[in-house]
Amino acid sequence: MKIILVGASGDVGEAAYAELSKRHEIIRAGRHTGDVVVDIGDKCAIDAMYDEVCTFDAVISAAGNVHFSPLSDHTEATFRIGLENKAMGQINLVLSGLGRISDGGSFTLTTGVLNRDPVISGTSAATANGALEGFVTGAAIELPRGIRINAVSPGLLRVSADRYGAFFPGHERVASEKVGRAFAKCVDGALTGQVVVVA
Amino acid sequence: MKIILVGASGDVGEAAYAELSKRHEIIRAGRHTGDVVVDIGDKCAIDAMYDEVCTFDAVISAAGNVHFSPLSDHTEATFRIGLENKAMGQINLVLSGLGRISDGGSFTLTTGVLNRDPVISGTSAATANGALEGFVTGAAIELPRGIRINAVSPGLLRVSADRYGAFFPGHERVASEKVGRAFAKCVDGALTGQVVVVA
Repeated sequence: MKIILVGASGDVGEAAYAELSKRHEIIRAGRHTGDVVVDIGDKCAIDAMYDEVCTFDAVISAAGNVHFSPLSDHTEATFRIGLENKAMGQINLVLSGLGRISDGGSFTLTTGVLNRDPVISGTSAATANGALEGFVTGAAIELPRGIRINAVSPGLLRVSADRYGAFFPGHERVASEKVGRAFAKCVDGALTGQVVVVA
Repeated sequence: MKIILVGASGDVGEAAYAELSKRHEIIRAGRHTGDVVVDIGDKCAIDAMYDEVCTFDAVISAAGNVHFSPLSDHTEATFRIGLENKAMGQINLVLSGLGRISDGGSFTLTTGVLNRDPVISGTSAATANGALEGFVTGAAIELPRGIRINAVSPGLLRVSADRYGAFFPGHERVASEKVGRAFAKCVDGALTGQVVVVA
């Protein structure tokens, strides 16, 4: 299978790569590095990436920015970053890729723990996660040609804990291998419309 | 209690009004009619509404547009309507109202059935609902001064079925009285961070 992995250099992307590269061809995509370069905040850049890759059987998105801030410090602009980049960016990967992906292909998006187990400063992330999970639920029954869609919702990765652990008091850390297997469940399995929680 | 009811002239707004006007002062707000006029797609209009009303104890939002369309017919622009208006519009009601609402006040937003029971053409609505439910989960633990936040998620209202029923095959219709009581549970009760499903 030929899989485009967007956000390949992040901790979640590396977890997906480690598992799926064992048996599939992976095209790594990232904002600055990778086999192809893409900024998912830019719809034209997404189209250009798909034009460059041309044919593919699956898309994994492990990309998307959100702004962490106490709710009372958010402006409309800071709050929107998560909805624009993490939510709409990943949704645009699907809307643009839908006409190009192989029959029976799959899209797997990444959400996260914060809309089921919130933390202070995480409201914008929780909002983006919820949007993506609503999107997956809705889109799954509308996709043609046997195409599937799912989301992986990982808790804080053990490898990310040095950087982000202070935001997540008491949260369990999850192993990258477990996150990788969740992506395998979505890509190699037959699920659709599901949010695969990694806790 | 003095309650601002945004989207008062819609079916959900009327259900909330019928229940809560029995014992509270309701300021009806709408895009074209009401005691105050507000377009929730315009952050400045939201601020102006709060300036005009000045003091209030609760905000109920039963407002927000989405574009219904098969997923493959959505452009980025049509898809964004739901995220911009229904999701970000209601979120801006909270972000702008947070510094002005009374101690112990409450915000109650409206989502809907489509992110738990999807229908064809409803993916943008499902996405907006998910965003709002993520927001409620995240924001509830960040609100100061005893302020609460919840969402009501009604199924298709019986009174709306003539207009929208064709989109919702097999969906149960819910009575407006039941929807009204869900808003009472949020406003008069002590819940926070909850999505009150009306099915």
